[in-house]
Amino acid sequence: MIRFESDYQEGCHENILNRLRETNLEQTSGYGADVYCESAKSLIKKSLGLEQAEIYFLVGGTQTNTTVIKSLLSPCEGVVCVASGHINVHESGAIESTGHKVLAISSNHDGLLYPSELESYLENFYADSTHEHMVQPGMVYLSFPSENGTLYSKNNLEQIKKICEKYKIYLFIDGARLGYGLMSQAADLNLKEFASLCDIFYIGGTKCGALFGEAVVIPDINKLKIKNFKTLIKQQGGLLAKGRLLGLQFEELFKDNLYFDLARHADNQAMRIKSAFEAQGVKLFYDSFTNQQFPVLNKSQFEILNKDFKFELWQVIDEDLSAYRFCTSWATKSEAVDALINAIKNI
Amino acid sequence: MIRFESDYQEGCHENILNRLRETNLEQTSGYGADVYCESAKSLIKKSLGLEQAEIYFLVGGTQTNTTVIKSLLSPCEGVVCVASGHINVHESGAIESTGHKVLAISSNHDGLLYPSELESYLENFYADSTHEHMVQPGMVYLSFPSENGTLYSKNNLEQIKKICEKYKIYLFIDGARLGYGLMSQAADLNLKEFASLCDIFYIGGTKCGALFGEAVVIPDINKLKIKNFKTLIKQQGGLLAKGRLLGLQFEELFKDNLYFDLARHADNQAMRIKSAFEAQGVKLFYDSFTNQQFPVLNKSQFEILNKDFKFELWQVIDEDLSAYRFCTSWATKSEAVDALINAIKNI
Amino acid sequence: MIRFESDYQEGCHENILNRLRETNLEQTSGYGADVYCESAKSLIKKSLGLEQAEIYFLVGGTQTNTTVIKSLLSPCEGVVCVASGHINVHESGAIESTGHKVLAISSNHDGLLYPSELESYLENFYADSTHEHMVQPGMVYLSFPSENGTLYSKNNLEQIKKICEKYKIYLFIDGARLGYGLMSQAADLNLKEFASLCDIFYIGGTKCGALFGEAVVIPDINKLKIKNFKTLIKQQGGLLAKGRLLGLQFEELFKDNLYFDLARHADNQAMRIKSAFEAQGVKLFYDSFTNQQFPVLNKSQFEILNKDFKFELWQVIDEDLSAYRFCTSWATKSEAVDALINAIKNI
Amino acid sequence: MIRFESDYQEGCHENILNRLRETNLEQTSGYGADVYCESAKSLIKKSLGLEQAEIYFLVGGTQTNTTVIKSLLSPCEGVVCVASGHINVHESGAIESTGHKVLAISSNHDGLLYPSELESYLENFYADSTHEHMVQPGMVYLSFPSENGTLYSKNNLEQIKKICEKYKIYLFIDGARLGYGLMSQAADLNLKEFASLCDIFYIGGTKCGALFGEAVVIPDINKLKIKNFKTLIKQQGGLLAKGRLLGLQFEELFKDNLYFDLARHADNQAMRIKSAFEAQGVKLFYDSFTNQQFPVLNKSQFEILNKDFKFELWQVIDEDLSAYRFCTSWATKSEAVDALINAIKNI
Repeated sequence: MIRFESDYQEGCHENILNRLRETNLEQTSGYGADVYCESAKSLIKKSLGLEQAEIYFLVGGTQTNTTVIKSLLSPCEGVVCVASGHINVHESGAIESTGHKVLAISSNHDGLLYPSELESYLENFYADSTHEHMVQPGMVYLSFPSENGTLYSKNNLEQIKKICEKYKIYLFIDGARLGYGLMSQAADLNLKEFASLCDIFYIGGTKCGALFGEAVVIPDINKLKIKNFKTLIKQQGGLLAKGRLLGLQFEELFKDNLYFDLARHADNQAMRIKSAFEAQGVKLFYDSFTNQQFPVLNKSQFEILNKDFKFELWQVIDEDLSAYRFCTSWATKSEAVDALINAIKNI
Repeated sequence: MIRFESDYQEGCHENILNRLRETNLEQTSGYGADVYCESAKSLIKKSLGLEQAEIYFLVGGTQTNTTVIKSLLSPCEGVVCVASGHINVHESGAIESTGHKVLAISSNHDGLLYPSELESYLENFYADSTHEHMVQPGMVYLSFPSENGTLYSKNNLEQIKKICEKYKIYLFIDGARLGYGLMSQAADLNLKEFASLCDIFYIGGTKCGALFGEAVVIPDINKLKIKNFKTLIKQQGGLLAKGRLLGLQFEELFKDNLYFDLARHADNQAMRIKSAFEAQGVKLFYDSFTNQQFPVLNKSQFEILNKDFKFELWQVIDEDLSAYRFCTSWATKSEAVDALINAIKNI
Repeated sequence: MIRFESDYQEGCHENILNRLRETNLEQTSGYGADVYCESAKSLIKKSLGLEQAEIYFLVGGTQTNTTVIKSLLSPCEGVVCVASGHINVHESGAIESTGHKVLAISSNHDGLLYPSELESYLENFYADSTHEHMVQPGMVYLSFPSENGTLYSKNNLEQIKKICEKYKIYLFIDGARLGYGLMSQAADLNLKEFASLCDIFYIGGTKCGALFGEAVVIPDINKLKIKNFKTLIKQQGGLLAKGRLLGLQFEELFKDNLYFDLARHADNQAMRIKSAFEAQGVKLFYDSFTNQQFPVLNKSQFEILNKDFKFELWQVIDEDLSAYRFCTSWATKSEAVDALINAIKNI
Repeated sequence: MIRFESDYQEGCHENILNRLRETNLEQTSGYGADVYCESAKSLIKKSLGLEQAEIYFLVGGTQTNTTVIKSLLSPCEGVVCVASGHINVHESGAIESTGHKVLAISSNHDGLLYPSELESYLENFYADSTHEHMVQPGMVYLSFPSENGTLYSKNNLEQIKKICEKYKIYLFIDGARLGYGLMSQAADLNLKEFASLCDIFYIGGTKCGALFGEAVVIPDINKLKIKNFKTLIKQQGGLLAKGRLLGLQFEELFKDNLYFDLARHADNQAMRIKSAFEAQGVKLFYDSFTNQQFPVLNKSQFEILNKDFKFELWQVIDEDLSAYRFCTSWATKSEAVDALINAIKNI
């Protein structure tokens, strides 16, 4: 059985395992005050071309989203996102548990927040004479790529950024799969350009080659004043005692572009799968150019693939048809994709 | 200028003012441990025909909704309501400020949660294999009447109650305008029947004859165990030092059916307004039989009425048409409605 | 039975009742957007000599403390106060319910936070190498008078203010009994001087002549930026629908110095009680010059007074002795105090 | 430089590293639904002799304390602990961030909550006539060993348990260093006995041989009903995507008693250090028999040891004397302790 269910099925890149072994008995200070974290931060800043950036390492995505959002909103403010956003659906109410409403914008399309939707939401909000009795929009949350594997163009991000500035709200981008987004053939911006468009974002490690770990980036700490971010990470349960485990992983990932190479590999494998489905006349539920693919299969097609492969039911469409999710990752083997493609040819 | 903007524009029924004066210098214990609260509770229980009910008095509606919802949900649970529900739109995120998500069901119709919508929401929730990562539905919140002035039939409430029991979640009904609901010509249930269908609800005073005040009713305290409700009211800022002010008001309102007489008066005046609009061929945005009416007016109709009357813009429909809200209340004078009807005849 | 149990046993000054009656059927906008609130704010600003002050009206004290503290602290910050502070003991965890720790400084003396204690607390905090793992002090909370009826001198407040400025934390003063503090013969500052020493404070109505109501004052809104304070009041359940009820009460209290006259009366009556105890050789538990007095009575003394008067057990000292609390208020009649003094003479 | 600063300076036991490597490319389901977690749970249950226990794995201690406490308290309840308790001092207000007050009992002794202190706290609480206005005690939190390395006797735990049962509050024990406690020569109870005395506790991995990880144990899930604990872990940010990393670590630790062997080693090394200090006439600040030792050193003694060893300042005592903390751990080498002992001989 070959699994394409998620991008967190395997462990981590072997460089990380090797380094863990080499350094296992070194004695370091706790909570991130160690040379591995320092070195990782330097490498990331270099990648970003931003000396003045601040970097923080946390363990997982929900924790990171919650900590970032909580750090920037005042008590009456909420965070705007598409209804299908991860924080609105799959984080068990973590955002609300910190007292903030998720202001969900219904979107029946591809998981992206369109600039026009955001603008009209904000216009309507302030036009409403009762808005003093409502949760104030304080931040926009996007994912790059979105939950559906789709991407914002550089132009769309620029527009969204401009709207945020006009309304004086923050722009936060969840980069749990950032590598897969930036390395996509459909992406029209690089990491530096990406960073210049966010107030705050994070670089996902868990799904992109690390055992676990997310790196929060504040591109310009002079502009975005957050009080006591480290204390807040601790309060939110995200400050790892052996903080160097996070530093060490990001150090390995940002040496020699490993992070990006791993992501490109996954995207390429995903494109092979996409092409195979398309060649077979299978419709894709979203037009994704990243590591998640969403073919619409009928029952018999499903049965055939289900024999040797595991993948996730995404959405029931009708009696016969459903959309499914196939994920590749940094760990996906070409041979596994070969096998899947062979199977697709016979559906 | 005659105002029909809201049902909280005036003070309170004169019996309450008289009683406040008579008792002004009496010395009573604080925080609700006084004879007025005791007496009010007895009268309400008698009205309900429920000796085993527990009654608590709070100052305002948002506070009451927040306290009730917080008292009954565990940390991962949210409260299901229609998207237009008061707690979802107009309470400044009070529910979320206590850590709980409002699970909004989009509803483009008349402000009511249909039993079938609720059932399908719950079915889909538990059918989703990822539901352990989602906010658990722990309670249903309804308003009677709804924000749009519409009413649940007895049959609909029975169905909703049954669904709640099936899924082991609570049913809480916001009765900020309960009097106007129960006294409506369209209501097919009385207070006792209403109480038998709720796990917890409140009887609104602020909008129905009191200066302020809401009476939370737990029909069967043996069934619904809430720990330390009084302490919780205090924590939420709703425990009035001079608690007898609340007791005294509800005592007056529940003497000789005053509460219901006041509500019937408001409903009757609202029906007169509705008829006047209908006679003029004006469409009503919702088919309300309670104290709020929502005519759809064009610009010239609006201008005519706007000269001598104040009322609220509800929703812009197109360039020319908008829905407006006209409220009557316990304090609305027949002569004011006469004047409005005369004006309507000329639009 | 004459009661000296608390300062919220009676209703309100008759001017307020009269005004409620006169204006009962006036139609005003809700939530504080009315002429009564405007007029009350003007009168208070005049009293303060501060045109640039912002004033907000809330219903009760716990609500007010919670809203103010929540509005000014970031998520990792707590509020420093003496262990006996109202927010630390008698608000049912309201502050913690908004996510903030009360940083209690143990104080075995008279309910006051000494400047030296505050300074040494803050010095120790920042000297601790692990302070990044601790709740950050973000605000100082004082009560004037304290829970024990004692007062800060002007000099002490100036010192505390200076320490707060040095450490960049806010100074908030709970004035639930502000009138009784400022009118005390032991007070060495007036309202204007008081206001100049706070970042934010409130003027208590509930205990000082109103039915209910507290007026939050932000002396200099340019210095203290709070986002969306009105929305926050709503979120915290403190925004009264019939907001004018609050405006009207503070308007009456701040006309012709009524607020201060009522407070002076209560203080004078309390001083008479204090003298009577002292003349009888009864020790006072705290040396209070405000409306709360704390005689230490033995059992037989207690029994004698307990026959005709109600007052509160404050603290058991030993088998025989306990401290008790006697409160006067704006409503205390001279004759009631005469009767008490006569009884004291016979203990 | 040899470091005795903390028990989380190194990585993990080599068995874990080996196993990580062996299984690195296995594909498993996420969030703990994997064979490693299953196997680890079986091994722990066997160790406990409790088939009906429920086990949950989280990443770190603060997260675990917060999740457990939040899961069991109702909104008005707080958690009782000694003032020096980890949750009261060093978790950045994590407990308060979930809305609950830490009810700190001042204790100037050895970090332990004495049964008599607990009982008198609870008696006084319920004797106070205003206790409805106060945070209700809902749980007792202990650490085993305490922050000071000291241990509860079996008898003390039994007494505390009895008091908790009498007052119907939960008993939760933080076992971040549980191994070091149970393997101490001063411990008079084993893991099974320990488990029988808790409503809920956790077995610390981070400080006892794992890279990270804590295992929450609910000895009797029939008695302690927690709704949706897994969802709550997710909400609190503690549900690791690659959950098997936690399972795998606890599986290794609970194979062949490795966990206990590692702890015994650390305790033995700590006892050697303690003896060396005692032989030199150095006073110990607390009489600890676990892996943390607290010698009181004068300045010249400190200078000598500080040349080649790192250890933590614990508390300044006077101009000359301070208490310091020396930690051993599973990773402490005998040779390192030999070197330290040699140095101690020369102070």
